[in-house]
Amino acid sequence: MSTPQTGSVSRLVVPQTAGKVVRLGTTTPLRLDCGVDLADFPMAYQTYGTLNADKSNAILITHALSGDQFVADPHPITGRPGWWHLAVGPGKVIDTDRYFVVCSNVLGGCMGTAGPKEIDPKTGEPWGLTFPVITIADMVRAQAMLLDHLGVTQLFSVIGGSMGGMQVLQWASMYPDRVLTAVPIATAAHHSAQNIAFHEVGRQSIMADPEWRGGDYLKQGTNPNRGLSIARMVAHITYLSEPALHRKFGRRLQDRSQITFGFDADFQVESYLRHQGSTFVDRFDANSYLYITRAMDYFDLAEQYGGLLADAFDRTATRFCVISFTSDWLYTTAASRDIVHALNAVAANVSFAEIISDAGHDSFLLEEPEFWKVLGGFLEGAAQRFGVRK
Amino acid sequence: MSTPQTGSVSRLVVPQTAGKVVRLGTTTPLRLDCGVDLADFPMAYQTYGTLNADKSNAILITHALSGDQFVADPHPITGRPGWWHLAVGPGKVIDTDRYFVVCSNVLGGCMGTAGPKEIDPKTGEPWGLTFPVITIADMVRAQAMLLDHLGVTQLFSVIGGSMGGMQVLQWASMYPDRVLTAVPIATAAHHSAQNIAFHEVGRQSIMADPEWRGGDYLKQGTNPNRGLSIARMVAHITYLSEPALHRKFGRRLQDRSQITFGFDADFQVESYLRHQGSTFVDRFDANSYLYITRAMDYFDLAEQYGGLLADAFDRTATRFCVISFTSDWLYTTAASRDIVHALNAVAANVSFAEIISDAGHDSFLLEEPEFWKVLGGFLEGAAQRFGVRK
Repeated sequence: MSTPQTGSVSRLVVPQTAGKVVRLGTTTPLRLDCGVDLADFPMAYQTYGTLNADKSNAILITHALSGDQFVADPHPITGRPGWWHLAVGPGKVIDTDRYFVVCSNVLGGCMGTAGPKEIDPKTGEPWGLTFPVITIADMVRAQAMLLDHLGVTQLFSVIGGSMGGMQVLQWASMYPDRVLTAVPIATAAHHSAQNIAFHEVGRQSIMADPEWRGGDYLKQGTNPNRGLSIARMVAHITYLSEPALHRKFGRRLQDRSQITFGFDADFQVESYLRHQGSTFVDRFDANSYLYITRAMDYFDLAEQYGGLLADAFDRTATRFCVISFTSDWLYTTAASRDIVHALNAVAANVSFAEIISDAGHDSFLLEEPEFWKVLGGFLEGAAQRFGVRK
Repeated sequence: MSTPQTGSVSRLVVPQTAGKVVRLGTTTPLRLDCGVDLADFPMAYQTYGTLNADKSNAILITHALSGDQFVADPHPITGRPGWWHLAVGPGKVIDTDRYFVVCSNVLGGCMGTAGPKEIDPKTGEPWGLTFPVITIADMVRAQAMLLDHLGVTQLFSVIGGSMGGMQVLQWASMYPDRVLTAVPIATAAHHSAQNIAFHEVGRQSIMADPEWRGGDYLKQGTNPNRGLSIARMVAHITYLSEPALHRKFGRRLQDRSQITFGFDADFQVESYLRHQGSTFVDRFDANSYLYITRAMDYFDLAEQYGGLLADAFDRTATRFCVISFTSDWLYTTAASRDIVHALNAVAANVSFAEIISDAGHDSFLLEEPEFWKVLGGFLEGAAQRFGVRK
């Protein structure tokens, strides 16, 4: 079938009116790292603000694992504000009155860009696991094709947190001439053994769900909601710090005065996690979760350059602003320092800020005044240096 | 049926010759915290060494979540050495030539002590979820009944790591007169929000497995191996430190020279985790996992005494040796310090050692010379002080 039929699956279909989609690779296909050519594929994206006359004010925002292109306007499925509405908008740190902001759904995603949930033009059916396994570099190549389509030759900045930060690093190393400034936030130049381990648990959880059907659930009209929900739960723990969990929940009970001696959600933190899991499945595709986590696990920028991270940035003219958060135990300050050291080794223009926050990895999505100050200051300085006009 | 019939389930049945079992509560039942009376229940245990004439050389070792009574001899199902054979045996730190060592399977467990896998005498069928939800205090009460049966009035020491340490703390607070010395290792006086969160993911994973059958899988001849395996995988990540995972696995590939662009276990850490999960299901019962994690989540010693942890140890004469490990992020040094502060507040006799180790929570199970030195020194000093003879 070409359209998912069951109610639970159809919730994942993005409304037709939701955002922009362009078909890329129609003349020259995208050669993926795995060797497969991807031709005539959809790329879904949003733009905010206006590209100026000399095309010098474009910012690409790259999203994280569970993010999407709806960075500053309501999510078409959940109706909730864009995932970075705190940072992006008129008069905000990333000022859409001044900059032309582009954000696209990553390759492998499930919000309109080519991924396992989309239709394989060759068969007219959802790709499922026949979709080629992609990498962070593949995501970036597709974004470059989108920018070609939009007439953006050079980016004033590429900015992203978490997996978005990996794309930022990949952009700066692969297309140095197209990137004036780069802001990798709460990220790492490679996935650690612990990072891989947590992702593997999530993938196993999805693949253990009988409704996953070997990845063929869209065609078979089933939905591995339970597996995806558990994958989200375990990931969500890693997005918060222990102090943040303690502050938010501690050992407080959920709508009861005493423990119940049972397996219901006695504790608020249990209820919260269950909610995170159960709402995630309404807006995310289980196979996309497999593909995107795999791309992150495969990410090792140094390995692309023979093992030395500094070689990824050899002779770079890009200005970098590397940002980490003290309580982020997923992508630690130490991981950001590795990036800074590599940039220092090639005498790159780099500033580094470790923001004091107890909110953990998710700090970059939250109201963190010090963070906004650092980011805003860096962009303002660079805009003046490069003469970016409105 | 009274005996599980399927091959996969029967693997969990402990061989008849494996260890000692006594039926407790035959005259007076065990009143559990949930209010249920548990009568005529089996308690499986092992002993090592000989109780001396004045019964002054008894040590109770309390086991962790996935441990059992086979502390120093081969596991009857896996054939592997006892889980603490490094520490317990003739001439070892806990010297069975000198001490009479007792270790019992906890209430709620699956190695012969009453738990959801055992037979409810009232029905002749496995308890499943009709087994009452138990607490750490219930486990300790059952152990006290076992010691009564063995004629051990007073323990020279009660020693345990992780959940074993929770039992140690519970022993010292509930039966201060029966405990000369207490050694809580790598533990906490309550479960934190993050601790609860990780356990909740494991429970949800088990309960999401269709083979779990609402907890009724033993009667229905199914086995929630996939759910239990994933629960074990996520827990296992928390037992190791990030540096330990990096040292053991890093980003090394498993039996291949390049990534495969697929969802097989490309990385060694993935293969290792899958192995941890798949072997665990051979020796552990899924419902037991629910019950024991729940008991740990419910553990909050201060709350039992009106909110002040020091009140749990009021006027204690027990000598404490609190031990933590630097890289343990599950039960941190800070959690051990909370225990020490409470003991200091009641002027208890307490020594505290933070052992430098990069192995994470599992350090207490590994060859850690500094740890053995601290534990051995404490026991030796106390044995001399209390005149423990062989």
